[in-house]
Amino acid sequence: MIKYQQIAIEIETYIEEHKLQQGEKLPVLETLMAQFKASKSTVTKALDLLEKKGVVFQVRGSGIFVRRHKRTGYIGLLSNQGFTSELEDFQLTSEVIELDVRKPTQEAALNLNIEENSDVYYVKRVRYINGQTLCLEESFYNKSIVTYLNNEIVSQSIFHYIKEGLGLKIGFSDLYLHVGKLNGEEAKYLGLKEGDPKLFIETLFHLANGQPFDFSKVTYNYEQSQFFLQATSHVL
Amino acid sequence: MIKYQQIAIEIETYIEEHKLQQGEKLPVLETLMAQFKASKSTVTKALDLLEKKGVVFQVRGSGIFVRRHKRTGYIGLLSNQGFTSELEDFQLTSEVIELDVRKPTQEAALNLNIEENSDVYYVKRVRYINGQTLCLEESFYNKSIVTYLNNEIVSQSIFHYIKEGLGLKIGFSDLYLHVGKLNGEEAKYLGLKEGDPKLFIETLFHLANGQPFDFSKVTYNYEQSQFFLQATSHVL
Repeated sequence: MIKYQQIAIEIETYIEEHKLQQGEKLPVLETLMAQFKASKSTVTKALDLLEKKGVVFQVRGSGIFVRRHKRTGYIGLLSNQGFTSELEDFQLTSEVIELDVRKPTQEAALNLNIEENSDVYYVKRVRYINGQTLCLEESFYNKSIVTYLNNEIVSQSIFHYIKEGLGLKIGFSDLYLHVGKLNGEEAKYLGLKEGDPKLFIETLFHLANGQPFDFSKVTYNYEQSQFFLQATSHVL
Repeated sequence: MIKYQQIAIEIETYIEEHKLQQGEKLPVLETLMAQFKASKSTVTKALDLLEKKGVVFQVRGSGIFVRRHKRTGYIGLLSNQGFTSELEDFQLTSEVIELDVRKPTQEAALNLNIEENSDVYYVKRVRYINGQTLCLEESFYNKSIVTYLNNEIVSQSIFHYIKEGLGLKIGFSDLYLHVGKLNGEEAKYLGLKEGDPKLFIETLFHLANGQPFDFSKVTYNYEQSQFFLQATSHVL
């Protein structure tokens, strides 16, 4: 781990452990530099990272302040780390419905930027949170990047495996949200009624080098779907 | 405007006008420094801003690449600039249902971090996109910050007025999303049926100094609700 990441983790841990409240001021830059025996640019990078993560906010000429906001029981929509790491406080399990190697749909091929005769891993799962259905998930993984999956892996955290097992670096992602009504099949898997509300999210995940590797379509159980999001100001 | 912001705008405009595609490589840092007659740190700040905005992505040791993703007809959930600037391509209008000064609800007072006997501006609007109902919006503005509103202002872009008219600097915001079913009143305003799906978003907007100034509760017409979101990698 790079030093500024280490410093960021230590500051975040300090905020958590001391239960600092929204708006509480952190020590000034010079104090942090002395405390972590780090240069100004390293501490600044650590603080920028924490600001991106929504842990602090910086007010020019005034200082660095704690940002707290998370209502409990809400799922962070933009963690980009997969649910499992996001939902540490919850009991999350998966039931694998389908897992195979196949040709992508036209839509998946287009999104993954691959030929229609390429191979993808197709995974269909129902995910449970504290024993309730959370979502029905269909994912298409570019097999030339995610070269191997099996039942044991996909019953757990696929993203953990991709990072730790395959050593891939996950980058940015694009999310598209819709609200609609459940069809019969979706309702059956989620234990709801046809016509009930649904939140439908399509996500295209990219590696850090910009290659899309996972096109995923997720239908959420509206009774379990509480999400939070943060917006940072980046005014042009 | 600060120089790095100016450079960011010029790069973004260049990408738009030349219709550069996802993955196209931008000139190297040295070329951009020469082109904009700017220091390395200024160009780096411009690129960091564009990365936050989702306009480019940087691959260490490899370069800066164009990020394009936006499906047309999707509303950016995290623009934080208010809809009007986000939806330039659409015809957006508002019908004001209520506008008055009142005491906040307990919930609004808690979120805005004010006493329950303080004054807030309460605004209830139906917003239309291309003539269709987009959402029903209820907002509570801390009157000691947003000191004046009238019917003409709230029929247009309130955020534009807050920035340009009142000279306030808008900072970060926290969003909470739920999916549920419309009640009778919501259905009436949106022209839908009771029990139809709804997306419900509560947002707490803060000034750049961290003060919350607007607590807003918005119920979306599911037939018009297509949102996109970007996640950037900021792994700890």
